[in-house]
Amino acid sequence: MSITKGRAVTISDVAQTAGVSRAAVSKVIRNAYGVSPGMRERVEAAIGELGYRPSVAARAMRGASYRLGLEIPYLSAFMNQIVEGAKLAVAGTPYQLMLTPAEGIEYSAIESLADGIVDGIIAVSPLVDPAWLEDLASRVPVVMLGRHDDPAGYDTVVGDDHAGTRAVMDHLFTLGHRRIAHLTETESVTRHSSGTPHAIRLEVYRTCMTEAGLESLIEVARRPQTSRAETRAATDRLLALPDPPTAIFAGHDDIAVEVLARVTETGHRDRVSVAGYDDTDLAAHPLIDLTSIDQQGVEMGRQAASMLLERLAGRADPRHHIAATTLRARGSTRPVSS
Amino acid sequence: MSITKGRAVTISDVAQTAGVSRAAVSKVIRNAYGVSPGMRERVEAAIGELGYRPSVAARAMRGASYRLGLEIPYLSAFMNQIVEGAKLAVAGTPYQLMLTPAEGIEYSAIESLADGIVDGIIAVSPLVDPAWLEDLASRVPVVMLGRHDDPAGYDTVVGDDHAGTRAVMDHLFTLGHRRIAHLTETESVTRHSSGTPHAIRLEVYRTCMTEAGLESLIEVARRPQTSRAETRAATDRLLALPDPPTAIFAGHDDIAVEVLARVTETGHRDRVSVAGYDDTDLAAHPLIDLTSIDQQGVEMGRQAASMLLERLAGRADPRHHIAATTLRARGSTRPVSS
Repeated sequence: MSITKGRAVTISDVAQTAGVSRAAVSKVIRNAYGVSPGMRERVEAAIGELGYRPSVAARAMRGASYRLGLEIPYLSAFMNQIVEGAKLAVAGTPYQLMLTPAEGIEYSAIESLADGIVDGIIAVSPLVDPAWLEDLASRVPVVMLGRHDDPAGYDTVVGDDHAGTRAVMDHLFTLGHRRIAHLTETESVTRHSSGTPHAIRLEVYRTCMTEAGLESLIEVARRPQTSRAETRAATDRLLALPDPPTAIFAGHDDIAVEVLARVTETGHRDRVSVAGYDDTDLAAHPLIDLTSIDQQGVEMGRQAASMLLERLAGRADPRHHIAATTLRARGSTRPVSS
Repeated sequence: MSITKGRAVTISDVAQTAGVSRAAVSKVIRNAYGVSPGMRERVEAAIGELGYRPSVAARAMRGASYRLGLEIPYLSAFMNQIVEGAKLAVAGTPYQLMLTPAEGIEYSAIESLADGIVDGIIAVSPLVDPAWLEDLASRVPVVMLGRHDDPAGYDTVVGDDHAGTRAVMDHLFTLGHRRIAHLTETESVTRHSSGTPHAIRLEVYRTCMTEAGLESLIEVARRPQTSRAETRAATDRLLALPDPPTAIFAGHDDIAVEVLARVTETGHRDRVSVAGYDDTDLAAHPLIDLTSIDQQGVEMGRQAASMLLERLAGRADPRHHIAATTLRARGSTRPVSS
């Protein structure tokens, strides 16, 4: 911001810094034809460097807000990955991300974004009605993150929850585990056939157990609220079972890290393996060392924001991206003790 | 959302759920006089339950957006605390939080919020010019988080960085450490006399070392960017010194957790104590067990949002809240090995 010292950055500042004409800057911003890649690169670098945003007046003229809305249930390590990726996609563009935490107020949170303040919305709302979303998408471009269906009116980005869950279950079976419990979110988030990532992880867990002849050992625990205390209480309930699990597959890493805490505090760490999902930064920490499924969260966030920018640039046909998953086996899962 | 099934929630739904008249709901929303605490409680519970937000038209009439902007540099464990607290303050009100990550684009990010989309702004921008902020505050109510000055035009919420830093340094001295390094953020974030929390932590670190006759052992490391890789590289530089530190005081817990990772990976964990700042959830994890300074981050976020709501309700005189700090001594800091 050095050349502008706190005053608003103007299109002239951008032109000066990029060494191009004001008209050229305007062309880049409007995504107009006739812009060479080199010029675009210089202008976008200057926009990024100066933190330029087109003036209110210019935006009003174009009818664009240059804001992208990102509706998320709550902040979490996985959501951090998504936001990180979305930031990569908008870096060097005049677009600004607006996040809104929406757990329990999903519809009003999305409406608040759709209410003319953003040009497009990335939504991470497993509980929002698909028909309602189609209606929303007719008013404002939408990319839905974590939805396993093929809507016509909006784009989707989702991880391959089937393959990811099979990978973690196969890993645990290979280590000799049979008594494997699954600790997941509330009933509403995992409702059968809802197609949410957590519903699919739960279904595939059940399928894998059944296929392995372990149907009678299926054990599903839930945290009734997304709090650390509830996660620990659910872990305690599993550990207090007459035949406690030798492995706990947690629905995502934030749950797994709390399970690991509780398993450690109660002296069960050597006996109970723990696996998570999302391969968040913390999973690779040597003191946490958590086995997890990498579903490329940063790339999912980047894809979602890029697809939204494509829609803003005119694409209307829906795109559905499925991110591949990779098992990251670490020290938190060990062979079952005999 | 059960009674409305995806359609927009109306003031009538709220009135019906709360068992009061539409006029009463309207009064609560407008913060009008003559509302009993019991009625306010019922209406706010219904608003929360239904996820009600006043309609666009109603808001346009009042000129209010019912959004509060929260500008943060980037997502982090400490920012999660702030957001958590702000959510507590707005729960049961019709206000919706809008977060925008602003590292490197502070002015434009704040301008984007001030551009008519929010009714007030909580800003966490150590680098923004105070005069510019006073100007902003003349247009829209502002609460600044993490600022050690007494501006007339806006409120501030800040931790007691002097006391907090003294507490961690005294703790390390008591454990016998003399060769204590400080790993902090960039020069710009810690500029002398800038009054940012990180500038004060650095100054108090220097003062404590000097007072203890250890001026020649002052060792300040920085991460040039807010990335894990840069934090690890800075740790490596400290560990490679001819006389490496026996303790590293990190500017905040996210840095400390990475330092702990690197110290563990390089086999120095038994020899090098690590302390952080913010007492994030992870610090108390038994596998991380990080000594830290609790500056009541959730309460700071709650205070900041409450103060903003007070301004929106008419308060004009500035308030400046300083959060007390508490040392949380844990296993990551141990007596210096002789």
